[in-house]
Amino acid sequence: MSDAIHLGFDLSDPVLAAAAWSRLIEPGDRAAGVLLAERGAVEALEWLASGSTAMPAALGDAAAWRGARERWLPRLAGLDPRREMDVLARLGGRVVLPGDPDWPGGLDDLGVDRPPCLWVRGGRLRPRLDRSVAVVGSRAGTAYGEHVAADIAAGLVDRSVAVVSGGAYGIDAAAHRGALAARGCTVAVLAGGVDRFYPAGNADLLAAIEGAGAIVAEVPPGSAPMRSRFLSRNRLIAAMTRGTVVVEAAWRSGALSTAARAAALLRPVGAVPGPVTSMVSAGCHRLLRDGSAVCVTDAAEVAELVGSLGEDLAPDGRDDGGARQESTGAPPEGLDPREARVLEAMPLRGSAGAESIARTAGLSVGDAQVALAYLELAGLAERRGGTWRRVRP
Amino acid sequence: MSDAIHLGFDLSDPVLAAAAWSRLIEPGDRAAGVLLAERGAVEALEWLASGSTAMPAALGDAAAWRGARERWLPRLAGLDPRREMDVLARLGGRVVLPGDPDWPGGLDDLGVDRPPCLWVRGGRLRPRLDRSVAVVGSRAGTAYGEHVAADIAAGLVDRSVAVVSGGAYGIDAAAHRGALAARGCTVAVLAGGVDRFYPAGNADLLAAIEGAGAIVAEVPPGSAPMRSRFLSRNRLIAAMTRGTVVVEAAWRSGALSTAARAAALLRPVGAVPGPVTSMVSAGCHRLLRDGSAVCVTDAAEVAELVGSLGEDLAPDGRDDGGARQESTGAPPEGLDPREARVLEAMPLRGSAGAESIARTAGLSVGDAQVALAYLELAGLAERRGGTWRRVRP
Repeated sequence: MSDAIHLGFDLSDPVLAAAAWSRLIEPGDRAAGVLLAERGAVEALEWLASGSTAMPAALGDAAAWRGARERWLPRLAGLDPRREMDVLARLGGRVVLPGDPDWPGGLDDLGVDRPPCLWVRGGRLRPRLDRSVAVVGSRAGTAYGEHVAADIAAGLVDRSVAVVSGGAYGIDAAAHRGALAARGCTVAVLAGGVDRFYPAGNADLLAAIEGAGAIVAEVPPGSAPMRSRFLSRNRLIAAMTRGTVVVEAAWRSGALSTAARAAALLRPVGAVPGPVTSMVSAGCHRLLRDGSAVCVTDAAEVAELVGSLGEDLAPDGRDDGGARQESTGAPPEGLDPREARVLEAMPLRGSAGAESIARTAGLSVGDAQVALAYLELAGLAERRGGTWRRVRP
Repeated sequence: MSDAIHLGFDLSDPVLAAAAWSRLIEPGDRAAGVLLAERGAVEALEWLASGSTAMPAALGDAAAWRGARERWLPRLAGLDPRREMDVLARLGGRVVLPGDPDWPGGLDDLGVDRPPCLWVRGGRLRPRLDRSVAVVGSRAGTAYGEHVAADIAAGLVDRSVAVVSGGAYGIDAAAHRGALAARGCTVAVLAGGVDRFYPAGNADLLAAIEGAGAIVAEVPPGSAPMRSRFLSRNRLIAAMTRGTVVVEAAWRSGALSTAARAAALLRPVGAVPGPVTSMVSAGCHRLLRDGSAVCVTDAAEVAELVGSLGEDLAPDGRDDGGARQESTGAPPEGLDPREARVLEAMPLRGSAGAESIARTAGLSVGDAQVALAYLELAGLAERRGGTWRRVRP
């Protein structure tokens, strides 16, 4: 494991390196996120290929990284992202990297959950996604729910708002269709590779979406739409839009995870009510009951929910999150329990060393350092020499 | 107007006096409320019949009372509440006065809006109303709404909760029927006299309600169900129950006034969602959107909303309101604009005279004194010699 691995492509090409990372990891691999944010895709890949067990600076001791390396190394041998890029090129697609003009700025709010790149077919993502809303819901939507989803999507398009969804049967498909019927822009974010339109029954719809908007995935062509990837995909839908609306969702529904992700990213969440006798509205009513969502019944109310999508929009799409975070004053959501513990363990005034913080938090120094690195990326902690201090949001 | 009027009945009988006042005034006459709270029904009636223009002590100058006297006097000549009481007695009914063991304690939260008495047919009101919820909604309820209303009512009865409603067509009737079908207690509060079951199409239903629960009105037998009386009646439904649930209501619906009254009385309000395509759910969704109501979908959630209806219940049914008022710390709702202005005009510390408060509030001394009397009844102001001070809720 300490021997260098020879890769058959140009490691120094940032596009190839990012594409390689999207193949090496499963979506939402936070250790990779920390590494890539710290080092960039090229340097991180060189480090991994070198077989070096020396730690990336300031990311804690090697032990903390062993697990991550062991996840990534099996996919490293024989890795060649040029194959996937060739498949994509034949389909007229492209790879979009963080910082590219076409990169959806909202994804940067994901911090270390940010994907290394996006695989895209169709038209440009920006500025369209700067004015976009996610309309999601149950695969088993009723005629009522599909009608409302299409109606809301069409109304959003009339307000020059792009409609983002997951390309699935039911509510997702109805939302895409409503946007297409109103000749607007709609974007489907898939859990598998963009080379394969899944589900197959929506192939024609997805082709139309490619023509009128775009098809997006964080996994490379050839990747199967596995269950875990659906849940990870939902964070992209939540992050790249200005708000999420759930039209119909059963008590336990993937659409609720999109709503939860959106809420954690401080994006407004709306839920469309329905008959209380309908099981596929139970999830929406649950969101309304526990205050996680605002009741919305038409496109005008959705537009009101997400607020002004116009001239006050910051170029990177982060203004909204920032403002809300500031106004609440509460510790930001979206931290995992370990990160929240580390944040809590940091002194309110002054600074402390990682070892002291780890002791207070009851964590290993390595775990605390990983969490501190994430908190730094999230703008909540700041390194000063060998110590850490809080940053007021 | 300054001549004494001879009344043909015993003025000193408190039941007759209260019954007389319920005939003299229209529901919700605040001046009467202030007067009755200050003097009691007997003394207030004697004062009115005496033709005296001398003011009741501490209620401001006579000018402030001229309008009220002019409203009441036309009904005073020929007044004989024994007639209405005879009608009621022949129907097996009775008059219930504030402070009677059967008086619904929640009505006392109405302050000067409290009715002088209730005209009742059927069984006892207490302790049944101590565990009660209002289930109200549109007269033009859909099959869906009526199904849900009946279902919630039956579920409440299963939890030993009485169901209060307005006896109207649609949602009200469905709620009563649901309670009756589950062999529970249900109470109908009418806008007109209890001698006449209105609407006529619900006569059989109202007869069944009389058998299983009670029929209640604040206006005496023979009173027509006028529009203004419906709105006043809604405050009784809101006040005598522990919470209000709106099942279906159009954008402008009387049921929303019941909800608003309940909220002003610090009673929890629930709204049942429905299809966004249904106009009679628009009022419910409005309540959910503006945060005036919690989303409820079944009887269990209604029970959760109104909280424990059991052993922690104070005998006078006021514990809940009091606790909530205390916990919010905000100025209490339910004040009219003039009372709110007077409360604001009172010094935060120390006390002030009525004239000084009136000046600060920009009101006449008479108006300020009426408002101060109400604030005193509401427990928000306190008289000390010739001056007034705030009372912390």
